[in-house]
Amino acid sequence: MTDKKSPAQAHQCVLAQIRIVLVGTSHPGNIGASARAMKTMGLQQLMLVNPRHFPSAEASARASGADDLLAQARVTGSLEEALADCGFVVGASARDRHIQWPALAPDHCAERLLREAGKSRVALVFGRENSGLNNAELDRCQALVRIPTSPQHSSLNLGAAVQILAYEILQAARGLDREPLGQDVPLAAVVGHQAVPQKSMEGFYSHLRQTLVDIDFFDPAKPKLLERRLRRLFNRLQPDQVELNILRGILSAAQKAARR
Amino acid sequence: MTDKKSPAQAHQCVLAQIRIVLVGTSHPGNIGASARAMKTMGLQQLMLVNPRHFPSAEASARASGADDLLAQARVTGSLEEALADCGFVVGASARDRHIQWPALAPDHCAERLLREAGKSRVALVFGRENSGLNNAELDRCQALVRIPTSPQHSSLNLGAAVQILAYEILQAARGLDREPLGQDVPLAAVVGHQAVPQKSMEGFYSHLRQTLVDIDFFDPAKPKLLERRLRRLFNRLQPDQVELNILRGILSAAQKAARR
Repeated sequence: MTDKKSPAQAHQCVLAQIRIVLVGTSHPGNIGASARAMKTMGLQQLMLVNPRHFPSAEASARASGADDLLAQARVTGSLEEALADCGFVVGASARDRHIQWPALAPDHCAERLLREAGKSRVALVFGRENSGLNNAELDRCQALVRIPTSPQHSSLNLGAAVQILAYEILQAARGLDREPLGQDVPLAAVVGHQAVPQKSMEGFYSHLRQTLVDIDFFDPAKPKLLERRLRRLFNRLQPDQVELNILRGILSAAQKAARR
Repeated sequence: MTDKKSPAQAHQCVLAQIRIVLVGTSHPGNIGASARAMKTMGLQQLMLVNPRHFPSAEASARASGADDLLAQARVTGSLEEALADCGFVVGASARDRHIQWPALAPDHCAERLLREAGKSRVALVFGRENSGLNNAELDRCQALVRIPTSPQHSSLNLGAAVQILAYEILQAARGLDREPLGQDVPLAAVVGHQAVPQKSMEGFYSHLRQTLVDIDFFDPAKPKLLERRLRRLFNRLQPDQVELNILRGILSAAQKAARR
C-alpha cells in the first residue's frame, strides 16, 4: 500500500494476494457459486485442485457475472502445486479434529490473512463437499479456520462457506482502510419498550393519511413522496401502544377541529 | 429467557423469534439454499411471499438437510400478511436509495434484530433476485441492512445474502450468551442523516404545544405527563431538517383548519 493510492485501491492490492483454493470439488455449481462469492467481495485468484468437472456449463451459470474468475482459474493436480508460492496457508474445517489445530474464528482469520498478504501470497483452502480436507492436506496449513454454526446442523454448503469467509476478508480490508460506514446514531432503544406490531402501524398510517387530507395538508392525487417520507419518519419511532394511542388521539382531535 | 436455560437454549429461543421473509423469489434453488443457510445458523422461520415455484424439487435438493424448514415454510400472497405480527422489520437492500433510509451494517443489524426479538417477533426481508424490494415494500421496514461488497461487483446471490446475515445473527447470538444485552448499544449507521439540533426541537415542541391547544387536544392547565410522553416520543425520531419542516407544516395546517 503506497500513500498515492486511494483507500479502495489500497485494499484491492492486498485482496489480490489472497488465493482461494478448492480441493476435489464434486459439484461444478459450487465452483461457480464460489467464484461469484469471491468476486462480490473483491477476491480474484481462484485455484482448483482436481475438480471433478471443470470447465462446466453449470459452474458458469452459477458464477453469474464472475465468469472472468472462472476463465482465469488455474487447475492443478496437487495441493502442493497450488500452494507452492504461498507464504501462509489457512485450511477451512467444519469438524473438530482429533489433533488440536490452531482454529481461528472467521474474523481473526480474515485479519491474519490480510496481514500476511502484505508480505507474501496467502491461500485459504476449502476441502471436498462431503469429507473436507484430509490430514495430509491439513498438514500443509499453518492454521485452520472454523465457521461457527448451529450445533443441530453444521453442514454449510461449500459456496456458502467461501461467501462467509470472503465477506469477513472484505470487512477486515475495509477496516484496514479505516473507511467509516457512517457515524453510529442510536435508534429507539428503551428497556421495557414494546413496539406495536406492523398491523397497528398500518392502521396509524391510514388514519394519518385521512387526517392530512382533512386538514388540507396534502393532495391525495400525488401523495407518493410525502407518504414515503412520513413512513420512513414514523417507522423510526417504533411507538408502543400508549404512544400510538396518543398519536391517534392527536389525529382525531385535528380531524374534529377541521370539521368544526 | 429464564435463568434456568443453558446459554445454548437461551439463544435458540431468541433465534426462534426471527423470521426470514423472501419476496417474489424466481429461482426455487435460492429458496432451498436460503433454508440451508438459515438452518446452519440456527434460524427456523421461513416465509415466502409469492414465490414463482414452490414447493419444488430444486428447492428441496438445494436445502440438503433443511427440508424441515421448507416443509414448515409459510407461503403468503402479500408482504403485509407476512409481517402482520412483527414488531420490527429490516429490509435487505443492495442499492442506495434516493431517500436515505437508516441502513445498518450486517453486524449492527444482527444485534438489533436480537434485541428486538427479545420483545416481539421480528423479520428480515429479502427481495427479488433481479430487482430487490420495491419502495412500497421498503415502506414496511423500520430499517435497511446493506451488505458491503466490492464496488466492482456487488451482485450477491440471494442465498449468499441470507447466509451472510444469518451468520451475523448467530455470531451476535453467541455474543449474547457471553455478555447479555441490556445496555444500550448504538446500532444504526445512518448514512448522510443529520439530525436537527436541540434548539430546533424546542421550536418544534412549542409549535406542537400550541397546536394541541388549538385543536383542543389538551388542557394547558395540566399538560405535564402528556408533554413528557410526547417529548420522549419525538426525541427518538431525531428528524433531519426536511423532516422537521414536514412535521411543522402538518402542525400549521392543523392550526389553520382549527381556525376556519
